[in-house]
Parts: sequence; C-alpha cells; structure tokens
Amino acid sequence: MLSTIRIVLVQTFHPGNIGATARAMKTMGLTNLVLVNPRCFPDEEATRLAAGATDVLESAQVVASLEEAVSDCVQVVGASARLRSLPLPHFDEPDEMAQSVIQNAHQAPVALVFGRERSGLTNDEIRCCTHQVSIPANPDYGILNLSQAVQILAYEVHRAWRKQAESGFTYQRPLDATPPSREQFGHFQAHLGRLMQQSGFLTQPHARTEEQLQALFSRAQPSRKELSLLRGLLSAFEAHLPDK
Amino acid sequence: MLSTIRIVLVQTFHPGNIGATARAMKTMGLTNLVLVNPRCFPDEEATRLAAGATDVLESAQVVASLEEAVSDCVQVVGASARLRSLPLPHFDEPDEMAQSVIQNAHQAPVALVFGRERSGLTNDEIRCCTHQVSIPANPDYGILNLSQAVQILAYEVHRAWRKQAESGFTYQRPLDATPPSREQFGHFQAHLGRLMQQSGFLTQPHARTEEQLQALFSRAQPSRKELSLLRGLLSAFEAHLPDK
Repeated sequence: MLSTIRIVLVQTFHPGNIGATARAMKTMGLTNLVLVNPRCFPDEEATRLAAGATDVLESAQVVASLEEAVSDCVQVVGASARLRSLPLPHFDEPDEMAQSVIQNAHQAPVALVFGRERSGLTNDEIRCCTHQVSIPANPDYGILNLSQAVQILAYEVHRAWRKQAESGFTYQRPLDATPPSREQFGHFQAHLGRLMQQSGFLTQPHARTEEQLQALFSRAQPSRKELSLLRGLLSAFEAHLPDK
Repeated sequence: MLSTIRIVLVQTFHPGNIGATARAMKTMGLTNLVLVNPRCFPDEEATRLAAGATDVLESAQVVASLEEAVSDCVQVVGASARLRSLPLPHFDEPDEMAQSVIQNAHQAPVALVFGRERSGLTNDEIRCCTHQVSIPANPDYGILNLSQAVQILAYEVHRAWRKQAESGFTYQRPLDATPPSREQFGHFQAHLGRLMQQSGFLTQPHARTEEQLQALFSRAQPSRKELSLLRGLLSAFEAHLPDK
C-alpha cells in the first residue's frame, strides 16, 4: 500500500533537495518519486545526498507537467507553507492528512505534491490538487527546507500506515529481559527488609521508609538478572554486618 | 516552555548537518542548541544551510563533553537508530516521547541528544541519558540523515506543545468565507429542484436523483459567495428553458 503513494516534486531548483527527498522517502518506505520539470536532474549532488536511496532516484519519473504526474490519482494533496485563498479542503494537521491518504491508498494512487523551494505551487497547480496540507510551525519562521517537509509528511504517512493492524509493523526490541516471578521478587524484598533492620538503617520497625524503598525497587522493574545482581550486592553488604 | 528544551549534537562530522539542524529547530520553535565537540564549527556550510536560522547557530554553546551539556537537565532523551542493549526506558513512538518531554519541560531543562552521523552515541554517552527514543522506519533502510531526525523529533515536540490548551497556538486560516443562512440555502435548493424538473432532467417527480444531487451541494458547503455564483449559473440555464 505504501507503493501506491507517490511523492511529486515540482520544478525543484536544488538537486541536493531531490537527493535528500529520495533518502527521506526510503526511510519511510516510500519509493515512488515523480519530478515535474526539475531544473537539474540527474545530478551528482542529488546522488550524493540520496545516500543509500539512489534506487529511488533511478526509478524516479521525470514529466513535463503536474497534470501528467497525477492524472491517475484519486487524491492529490498539495503541501504548502501557507494556505492559499483557493478554498480546497485543508488538513490543519499532517496526521489527519496521513490517515486520509492511507485510507485512499488502499484502492488507487495518491500523490503528495511539493512545490518550488522559493515560490511553492502556482494557482494552476493548486487546481490539480484535491486537498491542501500545511505543517504547523513557528509563525515567525515557518518555512521548512523542501526535503525536511517531505521527511515530516512521509513520517506521518508511515505512522498512519503502521498503526493499522494489517501493516504487520513491529518495533525493534532488544532481547526481552525476563521479569522475575512474584516469589523471587518476594525473596528480594524480604532480604532487603531484613538488611534494612540489621544494618541499623531502620530504627523504628514500622517506619514508612521501608515501604518507600521497596516501592522504588518495584517501580524499577528489575529483570530476573538484575534482581540476582541486587541480591548479590545485598549479600556482599550482609557479610560485613554483625550477626543478629 | 519550548525554551527549556535543548537540542544536543555530539561530535557532528558535517557542518552542513549543524546548519540544517538549526533551521529544523527554529521552524519548530526551538532555539537552544548545544554542540559537544563538533568537528568543524563555526563553518560556512553550517551558516549556508541554516538559512534564516543563523541566530540559533550564533547562540549555540560549544562544550567538551555530553555530561557538561546535560548536567542541569531533569530528562535526557537519547535518539538512536536502534535500541542499545542497555535497558534505558525506551519510547517506541516519538509522540509518546514528546508528550513526556513537554510535561517535564514545564519545570526544568530537558535535552534531546543526537549522536555522530555514522556511529551514533557511545555507551558512556547513553549512560548520560534517562530515556531512549527511535524513529520507527523502514527496516531495510532506517537511518535518517541527522538533521532529518532532528526535524522529526522537533516536529513531534512542537505537536505535543501545541496540543496543550495553554500553548495559545492557532492555525493559519484564510479569511473565513461566510456560510449562507439556512434560508438562503433553502432558496438555492428550491431553485435547483425547480430547474431539475423544468429542464426535463427529472422525469419522475419523487426520484432519489434530486436528493442525491441536493446532498452533493450540501456536502460541498458552499460559502455565501459561492452559492450566489451557483444561483447565477442556474439563472443563466433557466433563461434558455421553455416557460412552464
């Protein structure tokens, strides 16, 4: 489904932005890039900034007009730094846009369109769009670099995609450290409690102090291994305490 | 509150990444940049890529170690491409991280720490952190450019901030086109219905067809002005219809 999502760049001036866009796309699982009348492409600078995403550059299509780039799309979202007066449906939040795009992308191609670095999209190009989206930003300085805007919207699309049950996306996890059983944890608490008294730390047997320290260790959720290390530490202290 | 959030870059190799980071920060309202032992700074390339955010570069602090950069912070989130085996509390999702950071930033400095382009953070540097976060990405190619990672996490922090009632953030809106009153809309519907019959389009008076087309115009939510244009169009057609 991410394969039906097309990133369209219109008349990009800096080839470096094309390369950085390709990289931003690939990190978010997007591979379908279309360039409308780029100033300089192919270009060494694009290749350099694409890093490991040169395959996205190589498969990019170059066309002469935006109409050509999106004619088969069922949804065309124009990204702009500020709202235009043409009242297209507008997404205030990129995450709302992404949910809509992911829904439509099940069925047919969908495009996210980005304009020129300085002047964005023309009114004629906005007319090719079905929706607009802006990235909420600092009102005093809200113009993101082109490839950064692509990165954010691609990230939101990826996020909407992975939140779907059928995406099968799994988080990278380190090998899960097994938690201890309640019995093992109980042994630790008993050991700790005993040493709190034996060491002279607890002068009053029913002080809240013991509860608070026990709560700290509970909250830390030690793994089985960590608990075993703690027990070892307690035993090392214990060896120096007077017998009771 | 965004001012208590610090972006820390550790031993950045490419000065361009420092500049692009400054720009990414400023678009998201962050201004507090600390550089730990950058390879090349200040540098023309940093200034060039900072675009309108050179003020962030100028106020950046340069320090010799990560400990120095974060010693007064109450929360230090290390951004890494993959989880380390050191079991720090980990945010699977940047938005969860951002909510936590925004909460803590009310009270005291909080840092987001980014490592070297190639090797990330060392284990000693991870030990300076209280949390880790990764940006979920393409498992086949998940290493974002450093400044792109900053852009995404800064965007999420800004998002968590603006969702708070007290942020006072308002979306840019074009001048609101006034909606028509129900009476005005009713006149339009009556006009349209009349012409559907007069033109011979509706052959059966109670067909669902009229409902469906009326529903389309309702859904379009025409402004007062647009409704007036539609009425004008209907009148232009009407002038050519046989009198009834």
